[in-house]
Amino acid sequence: MATVALDVQGGDLAPDVPISAAAHCTTRPGCPRLVLVGDRERIAAGLAGVPHDASLLRVIHAPRFVPMDAEPRATLDAMPDASVLVAARLVRDGEADALVSAGNTGGVVLACARTFKRLPGVSRCALGAVYPTETRRGDKQDPFSLILDAGLTLDVTADDLVGFAVMGAAYAQRISHNPAPRVALLSNGTEPSKGLDAIVAAHARLKDAPGLHFIGNVEGLDIPRGTADVVVTGGFVGNIMLKMLEGVAETVQDLLRYAFDQSLMNKAGLALLAPTLKELKKTTDWQQYGGAPILGFDRVCIKAHGRSSPRAIKNAVKVACRAVDTKLVAAIADGVRALASSSPSPDRVG
Amino acid sequence: MATVALDVQGGDLAPDVPISAAAHCTTRPGCPRLVLVGDRERIAAGLAGVPHDASLLRVIHAPRFVPMDAEPRATLDAMPDASVLVAARLVRDGEADALVSAGNTGGVVLACARTFKRLPGVSRCALGAVYPTETRRGDKQDPFSLILDAGLTLDVTADDLVGFAVMGAAYAQRISHNPAPRVALLSNGTEPSKGLDAIVAAHARLKDAPGLHFIGNVEGLDIPRGTADVVVTGGFVGNIMLKMLEGVAETVQDLLRYAFDQSLMNKAGLALLAPTLKELKKTTDWQQYGGAPILGFDRVCIKAHGRSSPRAIKNAVKVACRAVDTKLVAAIADGVRALASSSPSPDRVG
Repeated sequence: MATVALDVQGGDLAPDVPISAAAHCTTRPGCPRLVLVGDRERIAAGLAGVPHDASLLRVIHAPRFVPMDAEPRATLDAMPDASVLVAARLVRDGEADALVSAGNTGGVVLACARTFKRLPGVSRCALGAVYPTETRRGDKQDPFSLILDAGLTLDVTADDLVGFAVMGAAYAQRISHNPAPRVALLSNGTEPSKGLDAIVAAHARLKDAPGLHFIGNVEGLDIPRGTADVVVTGGFVGNIMLKMLEGVAETVQDLLRYAFDQSLMNKAGLALLAPTLKELKKTTDWQQYGGAPILGFDRVCIKAHGRSSPRAIKNAVKVACRAVDTKLVAAIADGVRALASSSPSPDRVG
Repeated sequence: MATVALDVQGGDLAPDVPISAAAHCTTRPGCPRLVLVGDRERIAAGLAGVPHDASLLRVIHAPRFVPMDAEPRATLDAMPDASVLVAARLVRDGEADALVSAGNTGGVVLACARTFKRLPGVSRCALGAVYPTETRRGDKQDPFSLILDAGLTLDVTADDLVGFAVMGAAYAQRISHNPAPRVALLSNGTEPSKGLDAIVAAHARLKDAPGLHFIGNVEGLDIPRGTADVVVTGGFVGNIMLKMLEGVAETVQDLLRYAFDQSLMNKAGLALLAPTLKELKKTTDWQQYGGAPILGFDRVCIKAHGRSSPRAIKNAVKVACRAVDTKLVAAIADGVRALASSSPSPDRVG
C-alpha cells in the first residue's frame, strides 16, 4: 500500500479542505496511508469533527507554509521548515511514496527541485495539465488530453520537448488507462518542417522513437478537437493556451448568463437545455481529474489546483497512488534511456 | 478617390467570387476605382451577367496564379507574371494605392516582400488578424481585437514586438475607429518581469512609449475577455492561438448539433434560443471584417480569407481604402520613428 505525503497547508482553502479530504479518503476503500504535513493543532481540530480512520493517518507538525501569492524562492530560502519542503523530504527519505500539494505552484516545484533529483537524461522537468476535448480516449473514455509543459520551462530546446513527449506518454498510459496515447508536437502546421527550430529538431527525433505513438505535429485547431492525447509544447505556449481555454469557458458562461437575463424566451430555452448543460459541465470538470503531475524528478509529485475541493484533493491523492503503483518514475527513466540509445541527441554527441 | 488592385485569381473561390464582388462594389456609393488583375476572358465573362459600373473598372491580364496549396517561393520564382505579383507591381508603381488578395497567404506575403519596401525602423513585417471578444470598443462598438503577428514571423525579438505594437495601434486607430486602442504584450503573467526575454525587453521599451496606450502584459485569460484591443505576440503563438479559437468555435457548433440530435427537449430549447444564437453568430462573424492587414511595408496590402464570400472581399476592399485614406503607412512610419527617437533600441545602439 502506498503512502502519500499531503501538504495540508497548501492551497487557497488550506488547511481545512485538505484535512477534510484526507479524513473522508480514509473512510473509503483503497485509501493509501496518508502523512498529513501541517499545523498539528489545526489537523487535530479538523479531524475531531469528522469520521476518519486514524490507523491510516500520521501527522507531521510543520505549521509554516508558502502563502499562495508569495515569491516562492525567497520564501523557501527563509523557511526551510515550510510544510511543502518537509513533505518533500519525507518522500525523498522513503517515508512516503508521493507528494500531493494544492499550494503555491512555484513553491511546490521549487520544493521538488531542491529535494528530489532530476532523472538521468531528463533535461528539464515539466508540469502536465489536462483539458477537456471533443474526443473520448482510453479504457475509461476519458475526454481529457494532457498538455505539457504547462509553464515550468518557458523556452524549450529539442531535448526538452523530446523528454516531455516521453514523460507525457508514460503518464497518460498509466493515469488515463490509455495503452498507446497519441503524442504530438504543437506547431503552426502539420508538416515536419513547420515550427520553431526546436520543434523541427524534436520532430525528427520523435518520428521513429521506439515505444512512442508519435503522430507528428498538431495545430491549434486540434487542441479542442483532441486529435492528440498528449500535446507537447514549451511552457510559454502551454501556459497561454490553458489560460485561454479557461477564459473561453468563462466567456461562454458570461454569454449564457447574459442570454438568460435578456429575454423570457432565452430563459425557457436554457431551462430546457439545463440537463444537457449540466452533463457537459460534469464531463469537462477538471476537479474529477484532481491534479497536475510534475514530471521528470525521481519522485512522484501531484500539484492539485489551488482552489481544489475535497473531491479534487482526493482525486489528486488517487492519481499519486496510481503513479506509484504503476511505477511511473521507472517508466519515465526507461523511456528516456530507450530514446537516448536509439537516437543520440545531437546536443549531446560530438 | 483611391484605386485598389484586386488579385481576382487569388482564393478558394477565385476568380468568380472576387469578380462578382468587384462588380457589386461598383454599384454601391463610395466604391473606389478597381484594377482587376487576372484572366481577361474570365473577367469579361464574369462581368457580362451582372450589373456593374465599367467606368470604375480597369482590367489587367494576368491569367497565371499561385495555387492555394502551392509552395509560394518556388511558385513565384517560376512565375514572375503571377496575378498577385502583377497586382503588387501596380501598387508599387503608383497605378493603384493598395493590394487586396484572397490568395495563398505565403504567396501574397512574398509578393509584397519582393515588390514593396519594408519601412525604415520596422525590423519585421506582421500579419494582423481579428477575433471576437466579450468587449465592445471604439466608435463602432466593435467586438473584435486585433492580434499580431498571426504567423509571418514565428520567432520574435524585442525589436519585432515593439514594431508590432506600433503598427497594430496605428491600424486599430484607423480601421476600428478606436482613438486610443489598448495595446498589450501576450505573456504568461501580468508582471513586467514575466515572459520570454524578448517580451520582458519589449515591455521595458513600450512602458513609456509616446503616443501608445500600452497597458502592459495580458494573459491567455484576457484573449476572449478582450482586455486589450491590440494583442502583440510572436507569429508562432499568434498562429496557434487563432487556430485554437477557430477550433473552439467548431467544437461549440459540434456540441450544439449533438445536443440538438440528442433529445426533443434540447431541440425545443435550441429553437427558443435561435434568435440569440443567430445574433451572436452575426456579431462574431469575421466576414464582416473582411481582411488581415500585412503591416510594415511601404504600401497597403489586405489579405482576405481564402474562403471569402463576395461580402468579405468587398469589406477587404473597404478596409484597404480606409487604410489609404487615413494614411496608415505614414502613421506607422511616424510611430516607429517617434519610438526610436524616444528610446533607442539596445539592439541597435552601441
